[in-house]
Amino acid sequence: MREADILARLSAVLEERKRADPERSYVARLYEQGLDAMLKKIGEEAIETVLAAKNGARQGIVHETADLWFHCLVMLTYSGISADSVLAELDRRFGLSGLEEKSRRENTGT
Amino acid sequence: MREADILARLSAVLEERKRADPERSYVARLYEQGLDAMLKKIGEEAIETVLAAKNGARQGIVHETADLWFHCLVMLTYSGISADSVLAELDRRFGLSGLEEKSRRENTGT
Amino acid sequence: MREADILARLSAVLEERKRADPERSYVARLYEQGLDAMLKKIGEEAIETVLAAKNGARQGIVHETADLWFHCLVMLTYSGISADSVLAELDRRFGLSGLEEKSRRENTGT
Amino acid sequence: MREADILARLSAVLEERKRADPERSYVARLYEQGLDAMLKKIGEEAIETVLAAKNGARQGIVHETADLWFHCLVMLTYSGISADSVLAELDRRFGLSGLEEKSRRENTGT
Repeated sequence: MREADILARLSAVLEERKRADPERSYVARLYEQGLDAMLKKIGEEAIETVLAAKNGARQGIVHETADLWFHCLVMLTYSGISADSVLAELDRRFGLSGLEEKSRRENTGT
Repeated sequence: MREADILARLSAVLEERKRADPERSYVARLYEQGLDAMLKKIGEEAIETVLAAKNGARQGIVHETADLWFHCLVMLTYSGISADSVLAELDRRFGLSGLEEKSRRENTGT
Repeated sequence: MREADILARLSAVLEERKRADPERSYVARLYEQGLDAMLKKIGEEAIETVLAAKNGARQGIVHETADLWFHCLVMLTYSGISADSVLAELDRRFGLSGLEEKSRRENTGT
Repeated sequence: MREADILARLSAVLEERKRADPERSYVARLYEQGLDAMLKKIGEEAIETVLAAKNGARQGIVHETADLWFHCLVMLTYSGISADSVLAELDRRFGLSGLEEKSRRENTGT
C-alpha cells in the first residue's frame, strides 16, 4: 500500500467513527468529549515527541510522532478539514518556492 | 500528484538541505542549531495549532497543522528516521485491530 | 525582601504596564497583541523549561521556569486575576489534606 | 499566612515527599517515575492553562495555573533547585531595570 493510502484510509476510518459508540471507540469518545479533549492530546503528544527525541529513542520517536499526527487527524476530521488540505499546504510551500518563502518569512520575524 | 508523493518529496528536500548553506536555508539553519531548535518549533507549532483550533479559523488550522507536521519531518530527517516509519506505524495500528488496540491501551491508563 | 513581596511587586508592575507604551514596554506589547500572544509565550516557555530540565542545566532551569511563571503572571494580570488567587489555590490544596486530595483525584483518572 | 509562606511551605512538603511511599503519595510516585513523568505533567498543565484562558473560565485559569506551578515546583525539588532561586531570578530581572532588559532581549531576537 502506498503512503497516501494510509492517511486517506485513516481519515476515512476517523470520519466513520463519528457514528460509532463512544463506549466502544476511543475516537468516538474524543469526539463526544469535544474539541478541548483532542487539543489536550495534541499538546500531550507534542511533549512526548519532544521527550522521545531528547531521549534519542528511535522507536519512541516513531511511536510518539505517530500519536501526534493521529490526534491532529482526529482534530481535523472533527473540524471538517481533510488531511489533504494539510498536504496541499505543504505542497504549496515547498512546491516551487516554498521552503525559501518560509525562510524569508522567518527572517522577517513573522 | 498523489498525497504520498508530497511527504516523500518533502522528505527528499529535507534530506538534501543537510548539505545546504545555513545562511540561505531555513532548514539548514535548524539543523545547524541542533535538536533543541527543532523541538522548540514542534512545541510552538503545537500551541499555535491548538490556538487556531480554539479560534475556529479553518485556514489557520490548516496552516498551523502544516507547520507542525513540517517541523516533525525536519526532526525526523535530522534523526535519520523516514516519514515512512511514522506512516507504517499509523498503518500498523489502524490496520486490522489498530484503533481498538489504542482504545484498550488508553483504558488501562498507559 | 521576602519572597511574597517579589510576586506582589511584580504583579503591581504588570498591572501598571497596562498604561505603558507598547513601543517601549515588552509587556504592554503583549497586552496589545492580545491573549493568544501571551498563551504562545506560555507554551514556548513550557517547552523551554522541559528542554532545560532534560539538559540538566541548572541555570537554564531557573531561567526558563522564571520565564514561564513570568508569562503566566502577564496572562493572569491581563485576565484580571491576581497571583494571590493561584497561591491561595495551592494553599487550599496542600493545606490540611491537599496533596492527598490531589493524589486521590489522580487515582480516579480526573 | 503570607504568600511567601505558601511557596516555602509547599516546597518543604515536596522535599519531605522524597521519603514518602509512592503507593500513598502522588508526588512520591512522580519522583519514582522520574524526570520525564514530571515534564509530561508540566506540558499537560501548560496546555490546560492555555485552554482555560481561551475558554475565559476564571476558576479554570486559577486551577490550571496552580497545577502548572505545582508541577514546576515538583520538578525543581526533584532537581535540587529551590523555588527561591526562581523568585530571585524574577526579582533580578524586574528589580531595577528588569522588564526593560527583557524587552531589549526580545527585540534582539534571543
